[in-house]
Amino acid sequence: MLKDDILKALLEAGDYCSGQALCERFHVTRTAVWKAVARLRDEGYTIEARQNRGYRLQNTEYLLSQASLDEAFAAQNFLKRWVFLQQTDSTNLEVKRAAAAGDWGPTLFVAEEQTAGRGRRGRNWSSPPGSGIWMSLLLRPKLRPERASVLTLVTALAVTDGIREATGLEAAIKWPNDVVVKGKKVAGILTEMSTDMDRIEFVVIGIGINVNTESFPEEIQSVATSLAIEQGKRAARTPIIAAIWKHFAAYERLFEATGSFAALKERYETLLANRNREVRVLDPDGEYTGTAIGITEEGELLVLRDDQSLTAVRSGEVSVRGIYGYV
Amino acid sequence: MLKDDILKALLEAGDYCSGQALCERFHVTRTAVWKAVARLRDEGYTIEARQNRGYRLQNTEYLLSQASLDEAFAAQNFLKRWVFLQQTDSTNLEVKRAAAAGDWGPTLFVAEEQTAGRGRRGRNWSSPPGSGIWMSLLLRPKLRPERASVLTLVTALAVTDGIREATGLEAAIKWPNDVVVKGKKVAGILTEMSTDMDRIEFVVIGIGINVNTESFPEEIQSVATSLAIEQGKRAARTPIIAAIWKHFAAYERLFEATGSFAALKERYETLLANRNREVRVLDPDGEYTGTAIGITEEGELLVLRDDQSLTAVRSGEVSVRGIYGYV
Repeated sequence: MLKDDILKALLEAGDYCSGQALCERFHVTRTAVWKAVARLRDEGYTIEARQNRGYRLQNTEYLLSQASLDEAFAAQNFLKRWVFLQQTDSTNLEVKRAAAAGDWGPTLFVAEEQTAGRGRRGRNWSSPPGSGIWMSLLLRPKLRPERASVLTLVTALAVTDGIREATGLEAAIKWPNDVVVKGKKVAGILTEMSTDMDRIEFVVIGIGINVNTESFPEEIQSVATSLAIEQGKRAARTPIIAAIWKHFAAYERLFEATGSFAALKERYETLLANRNREVRVLDPDGEYTGTAIGITEEGELLVLRDDQSLTAVRSGEVSVRGIYGYV
Repeated sequence: MLKDDILKALLEAGDYCSGQALCERFHVTRTAVWKAVARLRDEGYTIEARQNRGYRLQNTEYLLSQASLDEAFAAQNFLKRWVFLQQTDSTNLEVKRAAAAGDWGPTLFVAEEQTAGRGRRGRNWSSPPGSGIWMSLLLRPKLRPERASVLTLVTALAVTDGIREATGLEAAIKWPNDVVVKGKKVAGILTEMSTDMDRIEFVVIGIGINVNTESFPEEIQSVATSLAIEQGKRAARTPIIAAIWKHFAAYERLFEATGSFAALKERYETLLANRNREVRVLDPDGEYTGTAIGITEEGELLVLRDDQSLTAVRSGEVSVRGIYGYV
């Protein structure tokens, strides 16, 4: 579409582009260029127009685009393909469709907006344009299916370290699927898998991060936050995305090479927000409290119960909540 | 399509239908009826045409059709929907597409022919028209994902009991995915699952049965057979299908109600072809031999190794072969 071509031209230029030059480059009329610019503004891009100089994209560091991803991933060799989408139903569904069409991956889908984003247990995941990172990876790991849930832990490590590197915020992991800053959730992970029991067909690793959300509804303000709220200024999204997949590639390589989470356990426990915290375990067979003391090499949370017995809590069977808040 | 309408009319009549009556019923010309009959003959149906009497379908008991499934499933209350397809790429793929489109199931797809049928580990599964049962079930069980592989055992039980009931042959289970008659494979099961680690999104249970296959390539004659070869005559497929899902519904209900395979363990071990046989376990960590003595409640094969140690063998990690043949 013309608007995408013009956006790419403005991004590449990084400065003013004359309307005449755009007309000539794309073989269209001035009116067509003007209309495309208007549509880009509707999508949230700030485009300055100046007599005799032309159009200029502002605040480009806050934009996501195919061009910004191309630049971020040019030097890495983990992702085979990356796709930016202005809008989609859900990036996890994008991955499933790509897998069904034979995509071998690793392939990353990043969307500016999801219209049907989902979190764990089928919950809705709000994914408005401009304020977040909504992305999913297609991976075909050589893992036994029963080991796949460890990929959620690997991802939590990568998201936490990526956010730390790109923003300096002290992000931490709330076992097993969330990343928190100062005890409030900034990111969630939804790992899905298609398997024939013997082997994994493919895995979908979905990541949602509240980046520039300015405020949250009052009823969730105590448990949810954004990177912008925590650092007091807007954050550029592309460097966060790049940092996350850099860490993911390294952690995943280590996990595959050793066939075990043991090599990542120490780093994980260092970043574990629940560690040495009192937790309430909402086991369907009976709720209990205790202290989270670490994780096992299978990725279970080790909880020292108040009766001094030690329980390895498996993701999926239970919910874990902090006694004094979310973590 | 007209040919499907005419097939249904001939099936329902069970006797001669005059060409004139078919023309009037479907508001088409004699030529159109004649062409539809020719197409049905191309698909393998034997349709007799007699002057002054009309068309009659022969050997109807050997045919699969939507009408034959409708009749077979009219009185049951397990399947919510069943779909007959003359040809498809793969019934497992049909299920995945139906699930993606929101089908809640239990829904059964039965195909006369698969053009891209698959077995375990991505192997091709030959599925020519006329000779087999190629079918897949969409199920959304309330099971923890790590328990889903037990559904393969439940299915093996149902296929074995269904074949026994409908044909009288002494079918048996080759743990975990195959059904054998006199030590040779007649059926295979391919269970697939889509999960978000916490819960199962849906399960696909694919079943392939060699029913009226007349002969097998020489290189697999020692390990593969068909129901027709074993009983010395062609078998009607619809009663086998009906019997399998009758048994499946009963076993699955028991499994869900008790949350455990314990209630099915005894029947499974009775039907287990490997039981008390010497087996070779092709474990990636080292091959070993022993005697299969039964299964655990988690569905693992219990093998008494030659060094007298007892190992619970998990499906997916290993292959099990008989020492003196396939079982």
